[in-house]
Amino acid sequence: MKTIQKNQEQRTGGAFLVRTAGTGNHLPAQFSEEEKMILGSVKEFIQREVQPHAEEMEHQKEHSRSVALLEKAGELGLLGLGIAEEFGGLPVSFTTILRVTEEVGRVSEFSPTFGVQTSIGIAPILFYGKHAQKQKYLPKLVSGEWKSCYCLTEPDAGSDANSGKTRATPVEEGAAYVLNGQKMWITNSGFADVFIVFAKVEDDRNLSAFIVEKEFGGISLGEEERKMGIKGSSTRQVFFNNVRVPLENMLGEREEGFKIALNVLNGGRIKLGAGAIGTSKTAFDLAVAYAKERKQFGTSISNFGAIQHKLAQMAVRIFALEAATYLTGKYIDDKINALEAGGLSAEKAEVAAVSAYGIECAVIKVYGSESLALVVDEGVQIFGGMGFSEDAPMARLYRNARITRIYEGTNEINRMLIVDMLLKKANTGELKLLERGRKIKADLTTGETDSEKPARGPKESLVILQELKNANLLILEAATQKLGKKLKEEQEVLMHVSDMVMQVYLLEAVITKIANLKSEGQDSAPHKNKDIANVFIYESVEKIRQAGQEAIFGFADGEERSQLLSWLESLTMPVQFNIKDARRKIAQMMIEEGKYV
Amino acid sequence: MKTIQKNQEQRTGGAFLVRTAGTGNHLPAQFSEEEKMILGSVKEFIQREVQPHAEEMEHQKEHSRSVALLEKAGELGLLGLGIAEEFGGLPVSFTTILRVTEEVGRVSEFSPTFGVQTSIGIAPILFYGKHAQKQKYLPKLVSGEWKSCYCLTEPDAGSDANSGKTRATPVEEGAAYVLNGQKMWITNSGFADVFIVFAKVEDDRNLSAFIVEKEFGGISLGEEERKMGIKGSSTRQVFFNNVRVPLENMLGEREEGFKIALNVLNGGRIKLGAGAIGTSKTAFDLAVAYAKERKQFGTSISNFGAIQHKLAQMAVRIFALEAATYLTGKYIDDKINALEAGGLSAEKAEVAAVSAYGIECAVIKVYGSESLALVVDEGVQIFGGMGFSEDAPMARLYRNARITRIYEGTNEINRMLIVDMLLKKANTGELKLLERGRKIKADLTTGETDSEKPARGPKESLVILQELKNANLLILEAATQKLGKKLKEEQEVLMHVSDMVMQVYLLEAVITKIANLKSEGQDSAPHKNKDIANVFIYESVEKIRQAGQEAIFGFADGEERSQLLSWLESLTMPVQFNIKDARRKIAQMMIEEGKYV
Repeated sequence: MKTIQKNQEQRTGGAFLVRTAGTGNHLPAQFSEEEKMILGSVKEFIQREVQPHAEEMEHQKEHSRSVALLEKAGELGLLGLGIAEEFGGLPVSFTTILRVTEEVGRVSEFSPTFGVQTSIGIAPILFYGKHAQKQKYLPKLVSGEWKSCYCLTEPDAGSDANSGKTRATPVEEGAAYVLNGQKMWITNSGFADVFIVFAKVEDDRNLSAFIVEKEFGGISLGEEERKMGIKGSSTRQVFFNNVRVPLENMLGEREEGFKIALNVLNGGRIKLGAGAIGTSKTAFDLAVAYAKERKQFGTSISNFGAIQHKLAQMAVRIFALEAATYLTGKYIDDKINALEAGGLSAEKAEVAAVSAYGIECAVIKVYGSESLALVVDEGVQIFGGMGFSEDAPMARLYRNARITRIYEGTNEINRMLIVDMLLKKANTGELKLLERGRKIKADLTTGETDSEKPARGPKESLVILQELKNANLLILEAATQKLGKKLKEEQEVLMHVSDMVMQVYLLEAVITKIANLKSEGQDSAPHKNKDIANVFIYESVEKIRQAGQEAIFGFADGEERSQLLSWLESLTMPVQFNIKDARRKIAQMMIEEGKYV
Repeated sequence: MKTIQKNQEQRTGGAFLVRTAGTGNHLPAQFSEEEKMILGSVKEFIQREVQPHAEEMEHQKEHSRSVALLEKAGELGLLGLGIAEEFGGLPVSFTTILRVTEEVGRVSEFSPTFGVQTSIGIAPILFYGKHAQKQKYLPKLVSGEWKSCYCLTEPDAGSDANSGKTRATPVEEGAAYVLNGQKMWITNSGFADVFIVFAKVEDDRNLSAFIVEKEFGGISLGEEERKMGIKGSSTRQVFFNNVRVPLENMLGEREEGFKIALNVLNGGRIKLGAGAIGTSKTAFDLAVAYAKERKQFGTSISNFGAIQHKLAQMAVRIFALEAATYLTGKYIDDKINALEAGGLSAEKAEVAAVSAYGIECAVIKVYGSESLALVVDEGVQIFGGMGFSEDAPMARLYRNARITRIYEGTNEINRMLIVDMLLKKANTGELKLLERGRKIKADLTTGETDSEKPARGPKESLVILQELKNANLLILEAATQKLGKKLKEEQEVLMHVSDMVMQVYLLEAVITKIANLKSEGQDSAPHKNKDIANVFIYESVEKIRQAGQEAIFGFADGEERSQLLSWLESLTMPVQFNIKDARRKIAQMMIEEGKYV
């Protein structure tokens, strides 16, 4: 009975916080032969047909190259992954979709175009469409004949998506709606045939969703936006002027649109993270190649400690992002399988599984975009003057990356969502976060203050991870206890707690991945992995200590503050080892290989 | 006798490290009536004539607008500040020049054009030119009739400037040289009449410098570089093909060019920092205005804690950069005055004074460019989707800012230079850094381990600053002692030590500025200043602890490591106060004012 309870708790998002460190290891997902073939063909497509046009896509007219490549992807069957064969697709695991997204992310000039079509442009229909809607739209979207876009944001409704002013007015005694309004920052809108539109029916509280064809008439487009980056993708305003939409084109139920919009974004977020892995690897490989080639002071600059430090910082983040993304992918696949075994349809199972791991998806969105930001920033710095030149690719990667911290929910909104989702699960009893927090506090209160702990090395990774989880739960509980409902208004505290949660999850993923590699005998570079783990453990302790400290300063004072700080300190003792040498070894191995490995 | 010794020690760069905290207060520089008038006219020029063309300068043909504005600046007398009247200039204090540079930095589309002309384009002639050279070139450069550029970097010689391949061959029995070679990333080259060229004569070990006129013939230009930012400035390659340069156009002595290049860069670095103040203020003001105007969830986003946190982080950095830049300006002015009183010419005094504060100039270059990076990055994030749009100004500021961490010496080179310059002063006995480090170590060894210190508030700022200086000297001494000459190869350790040095200087500047404002009764917003100081003290302790820790891990192990870590910990106890509220108050005050104040 207790085991079942525990397993159930493990099969939900956020459970990593309450799970004992080291008990959540999951073997990485296995790919079927078919999935391996798909991955092979994606890699080939990206390397041979997309990458050579990367720069060209910045300057193309009417996005003709991007459109042609999207259609080519359709021909190759890459737009229908995870979709039933009935609709022209090919069912594959969620992990396979993430891997494909990573590969497409290698070319960030093309990945937003591909991503909108395969993710938020199709998902609303796939997950919430009636069968007739799926039959009508999915085959053409999967083949690439039709292109789709996702119309949520408005000039005055960005993060506050539900406040949009686009209106759907029932006409013809309910047989149709007439849409009026304006949407903004709509990727792929310049060549889209299908518009997934979120609008309010009359004075409804929540949005409804509609599938709108360009053919319906009344849709006009703004000029292409002048953007800082991702110029390979089309971004325009979309105007709806008395667009008649038949009733059968409503997606889901009236007022269900807001839920649809948010659930679709969950999946979009982890895919953004997966794409960031690919973009990061591209940037990393370019940086290594440049550092090896560029000579100053009589030697390749890759021989300098300062450059190796940068390369190691980049590599460690890519490793962590990869670990967390595919661990989450595995969780989602397991959940999908369990739900399907329980009788749910594949689509309903996927929505429910992704939604169950909404916390992890948000973590990966934030970390993916921020680790990418570091990777491209250091990439530019390693390129030196050439990093600032548009004749080299790094400047473009730098510009492209900047949007990932803004779209699919700004990182600020996602950080707050992480804590919000956790607290909802705590309130419903799905996760016993606050009870655990109180237990930790009680243990700390009665326990001996271990102020004379011996110096710790990174080897004790599971002990350290457990302490970091405890620190996180301790502060989450204390903040909730102290602030109650006011916590929502204390965004700074939410941000710091969120930073702790993210780092705990990432560290668990890194430790899990390395344990798995070892247990599978796939640990081809055990020293590199050990060094990466050690550096990441070190950084995690530092970040959690710092975020925890600032969180405490934001809500506690006097005796409570001193007590919490002292507990935090005891749970975040610096890990002692030669971090400089570890970073050098990580960098040197990759320099030898000439790329991220 | 002892007092004189101490004063002398205070009158040199790097002395802040060995000076007792609180004894280095300098009143801020006073401006003469004439200087105030100049500042007024610069502000007016920038606001009325330059700012309105900011975006246009990105797209202009042949940089005609930038050239016209540079000529207008010449008419207004702004290109000759700090130059003797004999050459058409107007002698003003170094601080005045920095203030002018800050104002011009408000428009980062124009400031590189202006900066090259007034700084590295003129300084080599001003400081190292023979009288006839000054008479010939300065009046035309000051009036704006002629434009100048600084040709140091080559395709294969960036950070390693002395390795350039451009050659000067003596001809006509020494009456002239013939230049051959290629220079790269040459700002203002597209419209320059005068080229300051660094080249090696025959097989010399060091560079020589030449004043080369376009009229001499044989100079050709590459296409305009396609850059990520600062598109308002001209940047090209410059090719020298048998350019005949008469002997009288050599600058300084043969082989003196490398020294000239480096000394000119010292001044360029602090000016880069001053310009970054202006650019940061522009970005900050835009961000505040946008945050007030943009409404989500029924309120201005400026009311959200997450946004206020960002604004406070931006404001604190601008404040610190300003404090350090003008404190250094004051030191340099004092030194110039002392040297002039001792009989040196104004030009020689300025070179010597700036060079004496080369450490501080490098600190300000690094911090200026990195604080600017944070300001524009958060600016983009506050703008949300509009931050990524080229229709709003923030994207342009973001792109422009990126080069400042690369040029005038990359931040990596500057970080290493900081420690290198310090150690040179230690070796010559100019600064007793290592003795002080040993003394601190001895005191710590014999002193009681104060492990049960009471919680500290930020009020004890001088105590904290002193402890941070001690931590810095302790680790610098330990690293030098342990690594000896190998320290040079341990770039990571150099970087961390450099980070500590920078933060100590910045904190001293912040504390000094606030003390000065208070003593002068100019403390119009004492609470804001107190909050800024408190936040900066908090962050300084955290940064120095972290940098120190990583430095220690890079060179020490076993007992030594544990001992150093424990001392570091005792010297970097976290400062306890409600940092969240302090940040909110800083932000709220600026939100009320609608700009940085």
